[in-house]
Amino acid sequence: MPILRKPYLIFLADITVGSDAKTGAGLRDWCGVDVIGECRLPQGTVSLGLPTLRPQEAASAGAGSLVIGVAVVGGQLPRTWLPPLAEALEHGLDVVSGMHTRLTSFPELVAAAARGGGQLVDVRATDRVLPTGTGIKRAGKRVLTVGTDCALGKKYTALALTRALHAAGALATFRATGQTGIMIAGEGIAVDAVVADFVAGAAELLSPANDPDHWDVIEGQGALFHPAYAGVTLGLIHGSQPDAIVLCHDPSRQTIEDFAHIPMPALRVAIDRYLEAARLTNPDVRCAGIAINSSSLGEGDWLAYQSSVAEELSLPVCDPMRTGVDAIAHRLLQPMRRQPE
Amino acid sequence: MPILRKPYLIFLADITVGSDAKTGAGLRDWCGVDVIGECRLPQGTVSLGLPTLRPQEAASAGAGSLVIGVAVVGGQLPRTWLPPLAEALEHGLDVVSGMHTRLTSFPELVAAAARGGGQLVDVRATDRVLPTGTGIKRAGKRVLTVGTDCALGKKYTALALTRALHAAGALATFRATGQTGIMIAGEGIAVDAVVADFVAGAAELLSPANDPDHWDVIEGQGALFHPAYAGVTLGLIHGSQPDAIVLCHDPSRQTIEDFAHIPMPALRVAIDRYLEAARLTNPDVRCAGIAINSSSLGEGDWLAYQSSVAEELSLPVCDPMRTGVDAIAHRLLQPMRRQPE
Repeated sequence: MPILRKPYLIFLADITVGSDAKTGAGLRDWCGVDVIGECRLPQGTVSLGLPTLRPQEAASAGAGSLVIGVAVVGGQLPRTWLPPLAEALEHGLDVVSGMHTRLTSFPELVAAAARGGGQLVDVRATDRVLPTGTGIKRAGKRVLTVGTDCALGKKYTALALTRALHAAGALATFRATGQTGIMIAGEGIAVDAVVADFVAGAAELLSPANDPDHWDVIEGQGALFHPAYAGVTLGLIHGSQPDAIVLCHDPSRQTIEDFAHIPMPALRVAIDRYLEAARLTNPDVRCAGIAINSSSLGEGDWLAYQSSVAEELSLPVCDPMRTGVDAIAHRLLQPMRRQPE
Repeated sequence: MPILRKPYLIFLADITVGSDAKTGAGLRDWCGVDVIGECRLPQGTVSLGLPTLRPQEAASAGAGSLVIGVAVVGGQLPRTWLPPLAEALEHGLDVVSGMHTRLTSFPELVAAAARGGGQLVDVRATDRVLPTGTGIKRAGKRVLTVGTDCALGKKYTALALTRALHAAGALATFRATGQTGIMIAGEGIAVDAVVADFVAGAAELLSPANDPDHWDVIEGQGALFHPAYAGVTLGLIHGSQPDAIVLCHDPSRQTIEDFAHIPMPALRVAIDRYLEAARLTNPDVRCAGIAINSSSLGEGDWLAYQSSVAEELSLPVCDPMRTGVDAIAHRLLQPMRRQPE
């Protein structure tokens, strides 16, 4: 659970396609107050609309870290990116990466860090000795975002829900379980990168005992219906011992993404399976709402879909981008009722 | 998936309690033809009834590896054990360990290995680059042992089932997923020690496509009802894509072992949950039988329990130690029928 040094300078490398800056855009949108600028290589054309600063300038302006704000296929870090990273380290900034390639595998970065005093922070790695899970109930409340599939808005929903809870006057903390989430929160554990025996234990560590009225809003990972990652999802559920889940879904997907032979579950089935799994460590878990990624639907289709799902499931149905998630936050803050099983 | 060098010399260290030699006893019982002797420290009093040989003598007699055949609390390897391990390495034996402490963390062992040519083999570690799971159907048949809890006979049942299938004239291979199983098979992957994202992929690698009539008998790990390890279990299920499961159970347990707050599931519930999970990658999965660890029951109680469970579930109910598992093997070899759901 690294504690990252903010504020950030976002490195946009040499990308020329806006969607490759997803990580940087997430930082701008969810922790903008912690971002003081952006920098790029001469070949790069993408901007997040932030002030452009060289690493040295950012250091003078009080930045704590240069964060690699782009995701590229395969997660490899090209050597052509090294000069600005070394410059940041030379001037005492940390360099924060969520790439698969470890920063420490580049001797020139290790040397620059030693000279300038900056740290190399690979957010996918954790040096901590993790415990195994206990399943023992902790004080405080927890909500976990879960999904019918990967990559359909679990992080976004958790962040939006944290804001909505704050707006409603509740105590709430976003708990990050993936690389971008960790950069936004400044801390967290990439649960898919820990040794399998310790996933539930890592989730327990991530959402420790808290005030009885405090909500941990835990970023979900994977999906119980995903043939590669369901084990990560189940360990995260058990360790999170959620009082509530929020199910995220994209109605445009007919099958699990990149797995055309695995059908999407029906929403009712997905809710039942998540609650069944979660009851092991929290028998009182309930579903507090549905977060739809409706980017494939026009406004009329969305409204029809929303009301049909709400009627079928008797739950708040939101699109965090379209409607916000206040309805789900209010449901969470209502006195607890058991779902009919 | 290390390929271990047999035959083995079993190292029993300084233990004075027979049950601490469980690993060594498993090797003697399940791959006795590959074991040429045992050795111990002067303080050790436990014997497996094998010829006592010094490492040097074992090397002369053709041994390939010294295997640490004891399990101690915490899994730490004491420095007092190093001299015989170094002796083995000096004489060209590999040293094979399932302890948490890595053999390579001892410079004297690394040096002895370099001098003698032996290898240091930590069976919990894998150097292989593992794939993520695909969920794509492979040729050949697979049976996975699963449990209501950990440590109640999944490895033993899988080994017994492999023998029973061979005795029935079927093609079958035991696939090891834990340290003792790997030592017995000479290869395998300790799935609980891989990075969480790769558990299903490791299980796919472990039971590759095979002849249509060949059975992989896959050693289960953990339990879906275990608050620490259920994620490992689910990843192993999805990657194994079993055609059949065998449920292992110990009727003396009222709660998950060491987790007094987590009740044991009913057998019917356990079967349903395992089949539900397994259908993601094999919709035709069925339960082929129940393997009971009945060591807590006298003969009369066992017979009454066996017939009551068999009647309730309409499945073969065996205790591998008491009855063998021929009834389950025969059920596996029957033409496939769908279970009623």
